[in-house]
Amino acid sequence: MIVDHLVVLAPGLLGASVARAARARGLARRITLWARRPEVRAALREQPWCDAVAETPELAVHGADLVVLAAPVERIIELAALVGPHLAAGAVLTDVGSVKGELCRQVAAALPPGPVFIGAHPMAGGAHTGWEHGTTNLFEKRVCFVTPPEGAPTPAVDKVAAFWRGTGAEVVPVSPAEHDRIVAHISHLPQALATALAGFLAQHPGDWRHLAGNGLRDTTRIAASDATMWIEIFQQNRTEVVRALDGCLAEIQALRDNIAAKDWEDVRARLVAGKVWRDGFRP
Amino acid sequence: MIVDHLVVLAPGLLGASVARAARARGLARRITLWARRPEVRAALREQPWCDAVAETPELAVHGADLVVLAAPVERIIELAALVGPHLAAGAVLTDVGSVKGELCRQVAAALPPGPVFIGAHPMAGGAHTGWEHGTTNLFEKRVCFVTPPEGAPTPAVDKVAAFWRGTGAEVVPVSPAEHDRIVAHISHLPQALATALAGFLAQHPGDWRHLAGNGLRDTTRIAASDATMWIEIFQQNRTEVVRALDGCLAEIQALRDNIAAKDWEDVRARLVAGKVWRDGFRP
Repeated sequence: MIVDHLVVLAPGLLGASVARAARARGLARRITLWARRPEVRAALREQPWCDAVAETPELAVHGADLVVLAAPVERIIELAALVGPHLAAGAVLTDVGSVKGELCRQVAAALPPGPVFIGAHPMAGGAHTGWEHGTTNLFEKRVCFVTPPEGAPTPAVDKVAAFWRGTGAEVVPVSPAEHDRIVAHISHLPQALATALAGFLAQHPGDWRHLAGNGLRDTTRIAASDATMWIEIFQQNRTEVVRALDGCLAEIQALRDNIAAKDWEDVRARLVAGKVWRDGFRP
Repeated sequence: MIVDHLVVLAPGLLGASVARAARARGLARRITLWARRPEVRAALREQPWCDAVAETPELAVHGADLVVLAAPVERIIELAALVGPHLAAGAVLTDVGSVKGELCRQVAAALPPGPVFIGAHPMAGGAHTGWEHGTTNLFEKRVCFVTPPEGAPTPAVDKVAAFWRGTGAEVVPVSPAEHDRIVAHISHLPQALATALAGFLAQHPGDWRHLAGNGLRDTTRIAASDATMWIEIFQQNRTEVVRALDGCLAEIQALRDNIAAKDWEDVRARLVAGKVWRDGFRP
């Protein structure tokens, strides 16, 4: 399925990679972008993966059949409200945000009848943010959640799923609520643990970190992630993150208690359960 | 400083790498090994980094001036007791064990007057254990703790430090107690957290792990470590591990409470503190 007119609003690393993948893989006949800053708009005009750059989001979506809202989570809703009245009735919107439940509800409420929002969350990123770092293959073989709300029209869901599949991603359809529960466990919980471990070790002599092997290096790697992005994610997914943290805290406490009580049979069972689970990862 | 007669008892990955590094870097004039299993002794006889293979540990240490006890932690003490009476008065012993306080006390108590034990802990390893996987450069640029007990004779400490430095390691001298406190934080705590996180996620749908990005992959990598080795480490360093877990649990709980209470200023401070610490790692 080829999109006639793809519009990417507020491209950063992910949005620019969407446009570049669409051009490289022939997913869209025409690609229009809009960026908030004039100097970014000027730079985008020079890009071969960009057919037109609009001065405003409202102008950008004129005649769009697929709009990608690539802004940070809290700016997506106002952007949807802004462009809503300018969208054709058959237009479909998607996004790249890390949290979905609250967002999908609010974007749907912000849109007039007609256009449909089907959220998406590609599990891709890189050490560098910013549209200049976009690549054609950022989504290749990466999971992309597609999160239709209950009762979403099938053609719109299919269109969004097909588009993301076209970028090379492995599309995983789940409800917005289930998405938030899953990522709270597999993404937000590891981030919280890495942050807490790094913050705890920061209270000890600084040269300790240079004495560590690769274990500490790996377990704390994501503690270096961008704080502003994570504040937003924790805000948006607070309930599920707190629930996942409570479950994991109980697990850590139980391991601690069994080490303290010298219950080595239990400690062994926990070490083995963790190993079996981790060994089940794809290589 | 060149060792005249180096003896490595019960070589696994680390012990074999000690012998290979010593041969490759000319650290010893003569290298004798002993292994418990006859078929390993037969295989060792074929190795160019092995001048002699003894039938018993007692025979192996005859005329040794540096003995490396490469056995697992709980076998080191009995090995020291066994070879003690057969050591020359000037002989120096070292080891490769992950925990030091209790071990250093017990080995010292197991030895007759004369020979001196200066513990060591090279922060090196690999996915594969077993002497066949030993390499000449396993210790290169890796930290190696050298842990002299209080009042240890300087020549013995210098000899052990110089030997480990000779293998390419960066020697870090600390007391046995301080060693155990440091590794409880930088090695045993990350292992416990990775095990608990993996064990917690193992209670959720198994396909979730395939939806995760590299963050979860990194934070749980060491959960796949050998359970038997970790039981021993937790047993040997129980008090310090429990203390480190208590401190880290308080930190995780505080982050959780502040997310729950929407105290985003505090959450931001914690994210930033973790990032600053992690950014301070050597590349």
